[in-house]
Parts: sequence; structure tokens; C-alpha cells
Amino acid sequence: MNGATGWTRRVPPGERTARIAWARLVEPADAGAVRLVETLGPEEALRGLDPASPLGTRIAPRLATLDVERDLEIAGRLGARVIIPDDPEWPQGLRSLTAPPWCLWVRGPVQLADVCERSVSIVGARAATGYGVHQARELAAGLVDRDFMVVSGAAYGIDGAAHQGALAGDGLTVAVVAGGIDRPYPAGHASLLARIAESGAVLTEVPPGSAPTRWRFLSRNRVIATLSQGTVVVEAGLRSGSRNTANQAREHQRVVCAVPGPVTSAASAGCHELLREEGVILVTDADEIVEAVGQIGELASPKRGRSSPQDALSELQQVVYAALPVSATASVDQLAQRSGRSTGEVRSSLGILSAGGLCERRDDGWRKRRTS
Amino acid sequence: MNGATGWTRRVPPGERTARIAWARLVEPADAGAVRLVETLGPEEALRGLDPASPLGTRIAPRLATLDVERDLEIAGRLGARVIIPDDPEWPQGLRSLTAPPWCLWVRGPVQLADVCERSVSIVGARAATGYGVHQARELAAGLVDRDFMVVSGAAYGIDGAAHQGALAGDGLTVAVVAGGIDRPYPAGHASLLARIAESGAVLTEVPPGSAPTRWRFLSRNRVIATLSQGTVVVEAGLRSGSRNTANQAREHQRVVCAVPGPVTSAASAGCHELLREEGVILVTDADEIVEAVGQIGELASPKRGRSSPQDALSELQQVVYAALPVSATASVDQLAQRSGRSTGEVRSSLGILSAGGLCERRDDGWRKRRTS
Repeated sequence: MNGATGWTRRVPPGERTARIAWARLVEPADAGAVRLVETLGPEEALRGLDPASPLGTRIAPRLATLDVERDLEIAGRLGARVIIPDDPEWPQGLRSLTAPPWCLWVRGPVQLADVCERSVSIVGARAATGYGVHQARELAAGLVDRDFMVVSGAAYGIDGAAHQGALAGDGLTVAVVAGGIDRPYPAGHASLLARIAESGAVLTEVPPGSAPTRWRFLSRNRVIATLSQGTVVVEAGLRSGSRNTANQAREHQRVVCAVPGPVTSAASAGCHELLREEGVILVTDADEIVEAVGQIGELASPKRGRSSPQDALSELQQVVYAALPVSATASVDQLAQRSGRSTGEVRSSLGILSAGGLCERRDDGWRKRRTS
Repeated sequence: MNGATGWTRRVPPGERTARIAWARLVEPADAGAVRLVETLGPEEALRGLDPASPLGTRIAPRLATLDVERDLEIAGRLGARVIIPDDPEWPQGLRSLTAPPWCLWVRGPVQLADVCERSVSIVGARAATGYGVHQARELAAGLVDRDFMVVSGAAYGIDGAAHQGALAGDGLTVAVVAGGIDRPYPAGHASLLARIAESGAVLTEVPPGSAPTRWRFLSRNRVIATLSQGTVVVEAGLRSGSRNTANQAREHQRVVCAVPGPVTSAASAGCHELLREEGVILVTDADEIVEAVGQIGELASPKRGRSSPQDALSELQQVVYAALPVSATASVDQLAQRSGRSTGEVRSSLGILSAGGLCERRDDGWRKRRTS
């Protein structure tokens, strides 16, 4: 076995390369590695790693494959970049994860942080019905039409239909895949993935060459769930992986929506089970998704994210702000009803919010103003 | 016009006949009459009614048709009886209404109070689809199979399917109609109504000969909503009368459930709208209805109803009792999670509830014990 000083010579100095090394050495969300890196930082944790420790022993078999420069070269050939949490492009949403990706391998022209700021994840069963596929396409097209980016997992069935619907609507979509950026999966979606990367992005947290294993699918789901402000489950069987994504979204205070279907359809049984749980919102069109994400999404701002103007608001102002619609408008009376506050309180809050550039008055009422 | 003493001679003495007279003189839920009768009692309110008062003027045109003995004779010919709130057969659920029926005209062999104690209302669109009709039948059959009586309104579509499903399952069903007991409505359901009255009951709050007007349909809905522990909406358009029944049920602290369907189906749009509201439970089968009614139904006991063993429970015990399933069982851990209380609190409450005969331990956990 290499000594601690021996093998780290193969990792060029810097946080970026250290993170790429960690991504190669451990599986996503490895609790032991996460704890060590949290304490020491990625470089120091690599250098100081005791080969005889449980973590050292665990990664020993992978040391042979560690070649950061080759990983970067493969990425470069594919036109992929590597981003890390310190980069401005790092999506804010991922900061709510206790074990965030070490880095992301990204192909595509968009700046991730920007497009994820107003995005919705659409996930669902591989074994989708015609009904589900149609819904996923329609909802995705409706969301991009309302200036939302659509996140999904590029799987057959609902995922693929969501990406296709976004592309068909000339919108942006991001595919989060479970294998290496050089391994289009599923193979039948290779050209779809290529199309997604032309305008949006394909990304993964695992290094080039990695196979999409079951564990990587599950950990991939936490990325889909936290990149966006909300997750919509379109069709899901009772034991669907989409339930896992929905649970991750909920755990991280994201909005969770589900589309109902016939109770006679096994492909909708998982959605119905979700809808019987607390806080999962039934949606039947894109407007309802936007409403759900707009109203509750504000509460979902990542706890360790950068500060925003809302942070300084009083509780009353936050409540009124949360009640403001994004695309439609609402009258003072409607806002009072939605927020459970008096019209006087609503009026005074609107004054402050509007002075702070957080809302605007239109002819027919008030709405949120998007902050850049 | 008759003098106050003149026309009341046509009403034989007694509370029953006075109530039959009121049912003839005013529309269901007439607020003015309700207030007067609440203050004076039905007989005294009749005798003391000032013909020049607003109420007196309002009922003047109906005095000509007042003939209590003829009403009773028509009912008798049809094998119908008249029951009033003082009768043991009066359904407890109706006591939660601020303007209860003056009396009920009932055809059928069941004792209403008994069968309503464990009952569910199934309502929905007249313009139902094959999917909705199938669901209404299945759910009704499943409910009678679980020893629940099915209440509905005998309309075409969902209502009729619910009655038919209950009858097909050899169960009891009660039809609450909006017109007189001698006027089967809709005419196409005359034989269905006759079959319902053979084993269950057909009932109405309006006197013989009354046409089913729009107002009577709406006030009929409050009877459907409060007779049972919960209302299930199977299919409903956006402007469906079933929404009204669901709202009545909710207003009176009954469980409200709705069955989802394809979001592409206009016949399910009202259900989906309901399911987007607070507290409406998505159900896909009879077990889920029973669970919903069993868990929350206990909180729905009418405020002016007879006292039950639960009335004496502490808040903690009530919460734990509400968390107990009816047919399935739950472990202490599950109950702690459902009730949001510690396992210690759950255990001590189970001891008290079980000593009081309100729950029982099975091999695999705890469940409610039905009180007689």
C-alpha cells in the first residue's frame, strides 16, 4: 500500500483537484469522508489520511485508479467542466445537503447557479403510461413557458418525457445522471442527453468512467431534489425511486407535488400514496406547480446559502411575501386571506416589500418581483 | 287570512304534528322559523305566530295547503313514518345542524340512528364517467363489506352507482331525497328507490307532494353530509353540487375524502380542486375511507350529541385514541409517530384507553375498540 505522502503526490495541489480525488476515492455522500473533509478541508484531509484508519482501508483498493489529471483530460475532451462549492456557478440549492457532491462534472452552456434559481424537478416511473408521458411533457413545456428550468434524471419514461417537453418548449433543462459524464445512460437516451447538453446541462457528481450503480442512483436523487425549488412526481409505482426523490426534497424543505391519475392505474399508486401524506400538493397543471413553488419555495431557501434581501424581513413581511404570486397578481384582500393577516398589515408590508424591490404593483394587483 | 287561533286548529296537538306543520309551511332551514321554534318550541311557535310578522306574511300563501292529517295519511299509505328529534331513531349526526330538519319522512325497515352510526356518504356528479361509476360501486361494496352503511342522494351517475354497489354487496344504504317521499326522483330511479327502501331507507325532510327544487337539493345536501361520519366525493365537475355537500361535511367537522382521477378528465376536476384544499383526504379504496373516518371521525362527534366514553379523555388520550387504527393495528412506535407524542406518553394513554374499553391489544399491535 502507498504511504500517505506517497499517493497524494498524484494529486496536483489545490482544493479543486483534492475534491476530484475524493470523488474518485469514495462513493457519493460517504459519511466518514464528509466528516473528515468538513474538519480538515479537502486537501489537508487527503494528505493527513491514515492508511490504517477505516476510511484509509476502505479507499485503498481505489488508489490504483486515482489519476486526477486523466479525469480532467477526459472531461476536457468531452467539453465538460468541473465545478466545486467555491465556484460562483455552484448551485445554491446543493448547499442544503449535509453531504454535498465533492464536485460536479458539467456539460452544457448554462451557468448552473443562474438556471437552478428558478427551476422545478420532474421525476417519475420508468414504466410510465401514455397518460404519464403526456402529463410530464405538458407540465415541462408549461414550466419552461413560465420561465422555469426543468431538472430531471434522463431515465426512460417520465424523466425523458420531462426533458423532451422542456426542449420542445424551447426551454432549458438539466439532466442529473448517476454515472460518469462520459457514459450516456440509458444508452437509448444518448442523443437526448446530447441535445440537453446543447442548450442546458448534463451533470454528475461521479468521475468519468463510473457505472450508474444503485447507490449512485439513490444519491443522485438528492441532487435532483435540492437543485430545484420543488419536485413534481408524475407517475410512480408503489416502490418507485421517485418516492425517494420526493422524500429527499421534503427533507430539505423543498416543495413536493404529485400528479394524480386513475386509482385503477398501478403507475399512479405511488403518487396517490404521496398525496395521502402531509404537505404533498396535488397539481394538475403548470400554473398550480408555479403557485406551489412560489408560495412555499421561499421558505425553502438553503440554510447556508448566500444572504438575500428577504433575510432582513420581519415575520409579518415574510408571511405576506410568501403569499405573493409570481406570475399572476393578487389583491390586498386576497393577500390578507392567504396570509391570515389583516388588510392593514398586508398594506403596510407591501409598502416595505415594494420599497425593497421585492414586490411590484400591477394594474390588477400585487406580485413578487424576481430578485437577481 | 286566517287568524292565529283559527288556522292552528287544523294542527292536531303535539310536537310531532307541530313539526309536520312547520315542514309544510316553510322551506328547509328557514332561519326565521328556526329561531322562533328554538325560543318557543314548535307548538307554541305555531300558536303564537303573528300573521302580520315577516314570517307570518311569508307562510300565508301556504296555509291553504296545510293539512297535517292528510300528510300523515299519504305517508301511511306508502308505509312511511315520520320521526322527530325526540325519537330514539333520530340520527345523532343531524344534531350538529343549526337548522335541522323539522321531521323526517322515512320509508324502510332500518332504525336510522343505528345504521347511521357507522356510515359513509358517497356523492358525485350526475354526468359521471365509466371510471367514476365503477369507483362508486366498488367503494360502496367495499364499505358495506366492512360493515358501513352507505348514504347517498339517489341521483343519476355517482349517487345511483353508490346505492347499487351497496345493494350488490348485500349491504344497507340510505337515500336522502330532495322531494316528497311520494315522488320518486329522478323517475328513472323509481325502482332503485323501491329496492333501497326494502332493506335500508329512503328519507326526506320535505312533506309529501313537494317537488325537488334547487333549494331543496342544497338543503338536502346538509342532511347527507351530517347523517354519516364522512363524505367521499367520487367524481365532480368544477361546479358540482357535490362540492357543496363536501363543504357542508367539513363545516360540520366530518371527514371529507375525494377520489382522484386523470387530470385530463373534467369529471375529476372538482375532486382535484377539493384535494388541493386543506384537510381533504385522497382515497383510492374502501380501506382508506375506513381509516380516514375511523381516525378523524371520532373528533367529529356532534357537539350536542349524547355523551360518549371519549368525552372524559384528556387531550393526550384523545390524540392517542385518534391515532389508533380501526381495522389494522399500530405499534407503540407508530402511534407515537402518528400522534406526535413520546412512546412513554403513548404507552400510559393506551393503558387508560384499554381499561376504558376504547382500545385493544392484538398480537401485532393496538387498535380501536368499537363502542356500542
